[in-house]
Formats: sequence, structure tokens, C-alpha cells
Amino acid sequence: MDQKPFQSYYPPSMAHCYGCGTLNEHGHQIKSYWEGEESVCHFMPKPYHIAIPGYVYGGLLASLVDCHGTGTAAAAAYRAVQRAMDTEPAFRFLTASLHVDYLKPTPLDIELEIRGKVKEVKGRKVVIQEWIVANGIITVRGEVVAVQVPDEMVEALSKGNPGS
Amino acid sequence: MDQKPFQSYYPPSMAHCYGCGTLNEHGHQIKSYWEGEESVCHFMPKPYHIAIPGYVYGGLLASLVDCHGTGTAAAAAYRAVQRAMDTEPAFRFLTASLHVDYLKPTPLDIELEIRGKVKEVKGRKVVIQEWIVANGIITVRGEVVAVQVPDEMVEALSKGNPGS
Repeated sequence: MDQKPFQSYYPPSMAHCYGCGTLNEHGHQIKSYWEGEESVCHFMPKPYHIAIPGYVYGGLLASLVDCHGTGTAAAAAYRAVQRAMDTEPAFRFLTASLHVDYLKPTPLDIELEIRGKVKEVKGRKVVIQEWIVANGIITVRGEVVAVQVPDEMVEALSKGNPGS
Repeated sequence: MDQKPFQSYYPPSMAHCYGCGTLNEHGHQIKSYWEGEESVCHFMPKPYHIAIPGYVYGGLLASLVDCHGTGTAAAAAYRAVQRAMDTEPAFRFLTASLHVDYLKPTPLDIELEIRGKVKEVKGRKVVIQEWIVANGIITVRGEVVAVQVPDEMVEALSKGNPGS
């Protein structure tokens, strides 16, 4: 794959997220890419990401939907204005709401595929539909409503002063 | 508090969950209790549970809503049939769906309070409404639809054979 992952374009001040930040050494560091009109991310859960024996814990699945969703939202926002992801100003999204339906138990010990599709781009809001595939079977469906981080917060973060 | 947490009643075969299992040494090991008609859980995020600097990552918040929800669902199921949580057969719930609204950024470095209220107990399904309070402010609202683990799965797990 000759693309760089969406998350590699997050400015350093916004690359600390436990789910998707390239700078969070404890975190999942997920990597999302375009595959035509859909976005895709692969993730191998750890043995301790367990719910009941043999199955993945729902909180991890929710986290993957969440962070793949905000990454896809950012990529979609660049696409919507026909800008490359390495151009300024940087788009970064936060989750306003997250919905996850656990259709079937998701088996552990299998690399998961998280896929996303843009449902809506409207102003600073982007809605992403997602699904998780394990061994060819869709086990989870989800939806993320993502909102663009306010410009003043981007500026404050880049100055190391997020609370202001 | 003289109660034992809901999670301490999970049978060992179902106490491995990353979010709430007492036997998962890598996990969050959340502890939920009744406080009148509401359930409550306190959790201190780690510094690396970060979204953007200063704020908690949404995937953790979703996980807390998820696991506090299934714990409250189990406790509510015992209450509904007026049985103590240490009586057999054990009730254990899985999440069918999870919804989380992130109302405000949740500050890091503060102990969070996750609260739950039973919205509905109907057959093997329990719906729990939840909210997360940080520093006196509700930053998250969520809802979990939990379903009781099928009896045959409980039996298979207790025999160490979850896949059957």
C-alpha cells in the first residue's frame, strides 16, 4: 500500500490519542487508509482484550469504531474540499456520538478489519458508518458522529495550552 | 461501603473481561455498587488514556459505560427476581448495543464517577441509562442494551469450552 495512514497526518499536538495517536506508546496506534470509497483499518487484539473466553471485549471494539471513525472523518473532510492531507490547516475531529451494535461475539486471535463509509459531510460535522469483519463475518456495526476540533482549540494545543 | 462490587459475583469463567473482570490483570477492573436506585462506579484514568492533551479518550469512556452497564444489568436482574447476587444460577450479561453521547470533553487527572439507572428489565434484556460525572459536571451520557448470556454458553464456559 503506497498511501500513508490518515493518522500520520495528525499534527503532533493532536497525536497523543490512546486509540489512534502515533505518539502514544501505550495505545492502539491504529492505521486507517482509503480503499476506494471505503476506509479500512486492520487490528490484532491482544490476548488480554478479552470479554468472555474466546471473544473480544466490547470496549475495544467501540474504541476501534471510534478512532477509525474520527480518522475517516478527517480524511473525508480533506476529500470534500479536494485538499491533500499534508496541506494546512490540519483537520482533526472529535467524537460527538458513538453507536455500536454487537451483532455477534467477535472471536479473539483473529486480525480484525474495521471498515468505514462516509454517510454525511455537513459543515464541521461528518457522519461515518462502520462495520467490523472477523474471519469474513460482520460482527459489529457502528456509527460515529464526528465534529471538527474548533480552530481556537487547535491553536491552543499547538501552543501547549489546551485548557484555555 | 459494606457492599461487595457487582463484579465480585461474576463466576471465575466469566471474570476475564478487560473492562470489568477481576481476573484480568491488564484490565480496568471496574467496581460497581448500588446507591439506592442508581448504580455507581469510580474510575481514575491513567495519564496515557488521553484523547487530546488534557482530556480523556472516548474509547475509555465508552468502555466504562459498557462494563458498568453490563454489571448494573446483572445486578438489576437479581433485584428483579429478589435474589441475592451470591445465589445460583449466576446472571451474566453481554452488550447488544452501546450508545455514547460525548457532551463535553472529559478532563484527565480527575476521578470519574460513572452512574447508571435501570430503564427496562424485560425477559433476558436489560436497558441501562448512564452518565459520567467529572468534577461535578456531566460530560457523557450513554445507554447500554444488555442481554443475558445464554445458559448453554454459561455451561460451556464453566467447562472451559466457550466455542461449543
